[in-house]
Amino acid sequence: MSGLHAYKGHGTHNDFVLLDDRTGTLDLTGAVVRGLTDRRGGLGGDGLIRLAPTRAMAENDRLALGAADPEWFMDYRNADGSVAEMCGNGVRVFAALAERLGLHDFAAAPLEVGTRAGVRTVRRTSGGWFTVGMGVGTYPASPEFRRGGADSTVVVDGLGPQPRAALSVDMGNPHTVVALADQDELAAAVLLTAPLVDPTPPDGTNVELVVALGEHDTPDGPVGRAVMRVHERGVGETLSCGTGACAVALALRTWAGPGAPDRWDIGLPGGQVRVTVLADGSVELSGPAVLVAEATIDLGSLDPR
Amino acid sequence: MSGLHAYKGHGTHNDFVLLDDRTGTLDLTGAVVRGLTDRRGGLGGDGLIRLAPTRAMAENDRLALGAADPEWFMDYRNADGSVAEMCGNGVRVFAALAERLGLHDFAAAPLEVGTRAGVRTVRRTSGGWFTVGMGVGTYPASPEFRRGGADSTVVVDGLGPQPRAALSVDMGNPHTVVALADQDELAAAVLLTAPLVDPTPPDGTNVELVVALGEHDTPDGPVGRAVMRVHERGVGETLSCGTGACAVALALRTWAGPGAPDRWDIGLPGGQVRVTVLADGSVELSGPAVLVAEATIDLGSLDPR
Repeated sequence: MSGLHAYKGHGTHNDFVLLDDRTGTLDLTGAVVRGLTDRRGGLGGDGLIRLAPTRAMAENDRLALGAADPEWFMDYRNADGSVAEMCGNGVRVFAALAERLGLHDFAAAPLEVGTRAGVRTVRRTSGGWFTVGMGVGTYPASPEFRRGGADSTVVVDGLGPQPRAALSVDMGNPHTVVALADQDELAAAVLLTAPLVDPTPPDGTNVELVVALGEHDTPDGPVGRAVMRVHERGVGETLSCGTGACAVALALRTWAGPGAPDRWDIGLPGGQVRVTVLADGSVELSGPAVLVAEATIDLGSLDPR
Repeated sequence: MSGLHAYKGHGTHNDFVLLDDRTGTLDLTGAVVRGLTDRRGGLGGDGLIRLAPTRAMAENDRLALGAADPEWFMDYRNADGSVAEMCGNGVRVFAALAERLGLHDFAAAPLEVGTRAGVRTVRRTSGGWFTVGMGVGTYPASPEFRRGGADSTVVVDGLGPQPRAALSVDMGNPHTVVALADQDELAAAVLLTAPLVDPTPPDGTNVELVVALGEHDTPDGPVGRAVMRVHERGVGETLSCGTGACAVALALRTWAGPGAPDRWDIGLPGGQVRVTVLADGSVELSGPAVLVAEATIDLGSLDPR
């Protein structure tokens, strides 16, 4: 079959169509993105990732990079065809593709990836995982609210009418984190619609439900453990959300107070990730990246829409 | 990428992972089927179709073929890994794969396909469509009920509490067809849960909602037109159901009475099909078959489950 060369991959079951456009010659229209990511009429994915030379990207795409000049750019598109800035799970799969294509040797150095949110640095960690810097998390609430552990309330379908205390965390996108009592509550929550957050942030918010599971000791020191579910703003419940896992780790550290672990193993419905809070307050996200298939797509067969 | 050679295709957006196993050597476990059809961890599909030599199939798989001896067998698997007998949309995509692989020349003869429901004959029709014999439809209701046009009632979510008259049609699997007044009603129906059918058939039933749109004249005579939605037993609302479209055409013919067209153009959410009722009472289904992608799958990357 002659046609477009593509890959399908996922990071904790956040899945993508990936295109090797190392020559930067692909004209990727919204219609093609929608056709490729359609789950029944195309290859299917939550989004599309194009690997392209940074120099081939348009000026406005490169704005966030400033003087930085990484060789490769992650051109991320949502399934509806619109452009997006960054995807924490996607950038790991991007790294796996760069390695597969022989474009980067992770044994020699980390990979600098250009994105519309700036440069992201990805390195290989043990067990075939990748680790990516996710930037600094910030707290919209004032310090006294943070000491109280809450700046808002959330009513969660399936858990009764009473509002629950919640903490807002911003990871470049807005998150509202709610601690539940146990895994029975986590299972009982219904996330078919967005939980009611009060006050409602002006641009909406992702909502994370989390159950802390204590700490476990590792050769590198104590690691916190938790399981979570997430309702993504404008999308619905998803199997994984990279920035959501980071927001959850920051909220758990806030609630645990002084002496809380810097590292957190977070279980999401789609798989396991680790969040590490560095001394400078920035956050690293580690997790798997899986390339499932290499495909040749008949562009003429895609739905026109 | 070394791995399993596969295709992805769809018939009116009923989509499949397809495997070319013309040597009949593939050991297809339920776990591999589940991994391949998983929409995020695999290639993704409503089901899996393996093209294999009939002689390579087990004795019990070949039972329905009797003395017939078609060269190729459609080994259909549901996404949960269980075997299935037939799939009206899938057999067209099977035919497109046989053609792509050079295993059959449709210009010379129709293709006889072995299935667990017996032999199905597929031929190429105009516009790249395929036509397949779907067997004879039967009516569980007694003749006087059929003259009345109804043998049961259905309450449809979103259309008010009053029960609507419905007709049962059996296409090897059970269907209950409900005529709605117009396309506004069709759009307003909520099929998130199964409509309430009274009396409830012992093994459950698919439910089809249909709006007749009159007839249009063609060079071959009048063709009836209708649009429909379907709730598939045990699955939920789907974009297309081949036997459901056949059941709808038979119900529309019953309701229209003597002089009703033998051919019906049926619009489903996933695309357009044509149902033809032959002089012997058997039904043919015509529709598109699309091969979207050819893929090499890394079996080791699939979820173990």
